Amino acid sequence: MAGKNMQVLLASRPAGWVKESDFRIVETEIPTPGEGQVLVKNLYLSLDPYMRGRMNDQRSYAAKVEIGQVMTGETVGEVAESRNPKYRAGDIVAGRVGWQNYALSDGSELRKLDPKLVPISTYLGVVGMPGVTAWIGLNDIGQPKPGETVVVSAASGAVGSVVGQLAKAKDCRVVGVAGGKAKCDFVVQELGFDACVDHRTGDWQQALAAATPKGIDVYFENVGGALLDAVLLRCNPFARIPLCGMVSQYNAVDRYGVQNLMMAVGMRIRLQGFIVSDHMARWPEALKELGQGVRDGRIKYRETVTEGLASAPRAFIGLLKGENFGKQLVKLA
Amino acid sequence: MAGKNMQVLLASRPAGWVKESDFRIVETEIPTPGEGQVLVKNLYLSLDPYMRGRMNDQRSYAAKVEIGQVMTGETVGEVAESRNPKYRAGDIVAGRVGWQNYALSDGSELRKLDPKLVPISTYLGVVGMPGVTAWIGLNDIGQPKPGETVVVSAASGAVGSVVGQLAKAKDCRVVGVAGGKAKCDFVVQELGFDACVDHRTGDWQQALAAATPKGIDVYFENVGGALLDAVLLRCNPFARIPLCGMVSQYNAVDRYGVQNLMMAVGMRIRLQGFIVSDHMARWPEALKELGQGVRDGRIKYRETVTEGLASAPRAFIGLLKGENFGKQLVKLA
Repeated sequence: MAGKNMQVLLASRPAGWVKESDFRIVETEIPTPGEGQVLVKNLYLSLDPYMRGRMNDQRSYAAKVEIGQVMTGETVGEVAESRNPKYRAGDIVAGRVGWQNYALSDGSELRKLDPKLVPISTYLGVVGMPGVTAWIGLNDIGQPKPGETVVVSAASGAVGSVVGQLAKAKDCRVVGVAGGKAKCDFVVQELGFDACVDHRTGDWQQALAAATPKGIDVYFENVGGALLDAVLLRCNPFARIPLCGMVSQYNAVDRYGVQNLMMAVGMRIRLQGFIVSDHMARWPEALKELGQGVRDGRIKYRETVTEGLASAPRAFIGLLKGENFGKQLVKLA
Repeated sequence: MAGKNMQVLLASRPAGWVKESDFRIVETEIPTPGEGQVLVKNLYLSLDPYMRGRMNDQRSYAAKVEIGQVMTGETVGEVAESRNPKYRAGDIVAGRVGWQNYALSDGSELRKLDPKLVPISTYLGVVGMPGVTAWIGLNDIGQPKPGETVVVSAASGAVGSVVGQLAKAKDCRVVGVAGGKAKCDFVVQELGFDACVDHRTGDWQQALAAATPKGIDVYFENVGGALLDAVLLRCNPFARIPLCGMVSQYNAVDRYGVQNLMMAVGMRIRLQGFIVSDHMARWPEALKELGQGVRDGRIKYRETVTEGLASAPRAFIGLLKGENFGKQLVKLA
């Protein structure tokens, strides 16, 4: 296909905070699919906190991005050309094809989407990886029971907003933690959480205590740091803490030291890290419930969308700082 | 019964390290059992790290000891007088009757022991609460598989020594961590661990790495602090960390901050606190296996025994400092 492609490459490994100069934007030719291949024209790029880990040169559950490689990431796109019998031009697909306007794929990593069911952008959020992450982390690791208190950090974000709404549907008391009044208002008034603690206020620890009068039974961890310490002090016996992420620590040079882990002994707390891709067997059930919730309007969501691939590095840095509101997307076409 | 009793009371709540002056030793009359009661003459008192928590005025899984109360603790004793049909004078019993030479009990908290089966002191150690703690924490929380690497801290202690021997019997690679060469030699040469890291040497972190070339699958946590941080960096995917205790932190005014908890996300590590008394249904199976192991000589153990109740406060402080070697007991009669 004639024309120009644009790609975002990893230029250097960040030491501490990511800088825009850690990325390099390049123009290349739009590639031509070979036998069995599909050319995808990307429409939306998803930005997610996990991508920060891929920029590091360290042992992790997934391969790091090499210097000079296209940044890893999921997109929703349209098949522009296909030499793969499973796909036709015009098909809407999702896949991990990276930060670029056009991508070649052998099709194995793509899944076909139904654009009539829900808005296609939601396949990168509430009806995609972040939504399934919330569903699995809450249901399979958090295991909330009616009447229990569930606390979720990054509560207005792509994962946290789903966690809280699912927990409300299970008749839990749901308390969010978010940065700023606007996010907290949204979490309570739009998403229906019982309360939301603004961690940017000086008395957030007292606010957390006031919002959890019966203690905490499930804490869905997206943030880490001082919040985890405060939560540990309020955990009830047999509390569960799904460890989904610790975004406050991803750029930290001096990591926060968690001092109250000793509470986990006496209170028999379970802290458990998980990665959504380990649980593929659970995806269909999760996606069905989330898709129905979005169609019915029972599950609400918010998106922050920037325009054009060149905006991705700055938007990603903003995501890590909590400047986004809801799911962070880049509209590519 | 005529004569004098001796009791150790909690005199003050320690701020930081326990001092001998936090205890008060008093002489009282030996009490006379009422209807349904048993008078127990204690023979051995068990000293265990958990007792430190009972001295604090804080929320915990078990009632704290009040100022002026007899310190809580388990003993093995002989029934001196009984007005309870379930017990006869001369019966050997174990129970949580406190730091005292004689104790009254309604019998509900006592269990009869067979003194011919194993040495009676072991009912406070390997064939008692510490042994069952090891058994449940390793089997039910740690869930080691053959070929996996199991690391256990306080490896020569009452719990750790059993953990390692049980893990060896499951064909795991077993690495202990202990303080000093004598304990490390014992752990390897007598208990049969594959290796032991002396945390009192300057290069213990390198020694831990060298002893765990395939990473760590199970870490049985008795100690907390910097060791946990070092272990987190070496955990394999899906590692399990039974949190049994964190003795390094019990007297800490400034608690150690664990910086590497973020590893639990990417490596899907499960950290889980537990208390042996939550698992009463598992005790009979555990005690049977442990008792047989001691009788057969397959499970080895070591005891440090001080003489007389007045030695208990100092021995307890020594236990918290790791001065004991194996199970810490006080011989009362």
